Amino acid sequence: MAGRMALLLEFDGSRFHGWQRQTNAMSVQEALETALSRVADAPVRAVAAGRTDAGVHGLGMVVHFDPPVERPAEAWIRGVNAHLPQGAAVVEAVPVAAGFDARRKARARTYLYRLLARPGRPGLEQGRVTWVRGPLDAEAMAEGGRWLQGRRDFSAFRAAGCQAAHPVREVQRLAVRALGEEIQVAVRADAFLYNMVRIMVGSLVEVGLGRQNPAWIGEVLTSGDRERAGPTARPEGLYFAAVHYPPEWGAPAPPTRGPGGFDPAGF
Amino acid sequence: MAGRMALLLEFDGSRFHGWQRQTNAMSVQEALETALSRVADAPVRAVAAGRTDAGVHGLGMVVHFDPPVERPAEAWIRGVNAHLPQGAAVVEAVPVAAGFDARRKARARTYLYRLLARPGRPGLEQGRVTWVRGPLDAEAMAEGGRWLQGRRDFSAFRAAGCQAAHPVREVQRLAVRALGEEIQVAVRADAFLYNMVRIMVGSLVEVGLGRQNPAWIGEVLTSGDRERAGPTARPEGLYFAAVHYPPEWGAPAPPTRGPGGFDPAGF
Repeated sequence: MAGRMALLLEFDGSRFHGWQRQTNAMSVQEALETALSRVADAPVRAVAAGRTDAGVHGLGMVVHFDPPVERPAEAWIRGVNAHLPQGAAVVEAVPVAAGFDARRKARARTYLYRLLARPGRPGLEQGRVTWVRGPLDAEAMAEGGRWLQGRRDFSAFRAAGCQAAHPVREVQRLAVRALGEEIQVAVRADAFLYNMVRIMVGSLVEVGLGRQNPAWIGEVLTSGDRERAGPTARPEGLYFAAVHYPPEWGAPAPPTRGPGGFDPAGF
Repeated sequence: MAGRMALLLEFDGSRFHGWQRQTNAMSVQEALETALSRVADAPVRAVAAGRTDAGVHGLGMVVHFDPPVERPAEAWIRGVNAHLPQGAAVVEAVPVAAGFDARRKARARTYLYRLLARPGRPGLEQGRVTWVRGPLDAEAMAEGGRWLQGRRDFSAFRAAGCQAAHPVREVQRLAVRALGEEIQVAVRADAFLYNMVRIMVGSLVEVGLGRQNPAWIGEVLTSGDRERAGPTARPEGLYFAAVHYPPEWGAPAPPTRGPGGFDPAGF
């Protein structure tokens, strides 16, 4: 057996039913494992840095696998891409140190959420942004977001069905940026609870629409009550943008460009 | 009959067979005219600032039409969008001065072309960028692009089948910008010959790949010979980004944000 490899993977979430293998729908994992197995001519299992729901996009997803045969890194790009369906592609393939694990060794993850706030729904970017008809007050949203930074109990921003052992996460950075009618919310944390970003964004949109004031975000957080937070924002505006590892593993670096001019590596 | 209206329209080119009506394929024009006719409850014809080929995207396309009935501007956004298929949307609807014509009154048009230069094909942005495997020298491309500015005979960058009466056009601005692995070519001109941007970009890619030097672009231009230029670049990287009108018409302004962080209004 050859040494462990890591891949940097991109995918258009609208074309897959999320990362994880499912019985009756095409997942990114199934598409990737099928392509890897064809290149290796033997079964290959892939482990991703994080799971994504159907509709959520992958930009700087990192995956590891153990090649049953030795192949040049190039083959894991070109060969695998030749077998992947439209809307998914390997961007980089690198050998990593033994013991590397795409999920367990991640020090932080970055998500990007894109909102389009205008009277007309998206045409060109349908399925790639979440549309909000009313204008959004980005400054109020940024003020609300300040309550969500640091090491906190995020129980109020955790969906039912979350399998995490405990609800404490460290949000290292949260930024709200307005680019014309597009509002971007970027969040970097050590790890995320299930639907945490989407519930955060759904709550910040309540603030942006003026239905709640920014301090309400702090009240929701303190309550620890999911019922008090905003709705779960739709999946299509969400991008799994980057995974950050300690440099000694030699894992792929986050991409330097993303949708809407977002820079995952620089965030 | 109510006064003439102008629309700002977006569309995902991968979902339509170009702007112009066709017998056996869904065009943007047919989709829009059908939606307008439903809102008006009477036949409506739409005239666009420019035609686009299948696969080419619309960002700041302007269209005019004569409403057979009076409707608030809001109805021409919400109502029409409710009848448009996925991947096309009206962003703005404004009454314009009598005599306005989306095509004839345009003073300039801006196109954006997006290239992705990297070993792995696009995943997330498949159908929205043109992939070039080799690295591209953006500086050499910018130098080559300088030959294409000003009022020139662009016969060498004109596809067979072009119906323009004469081949002289004024390129007011041409810029090449590198954002990581994405190279953007933006061109603003009074008007364009058929496939002019795609042949320009196909030629600049030859320079970017090092197959030709920048001055070769000048030689091609002088030759007036389409056979000497590079290949026609693929449609999926091309965006009809903006139309510029004299302000007195009250036509929709170009969008302030576009894909890859491009600002059509500011170009």
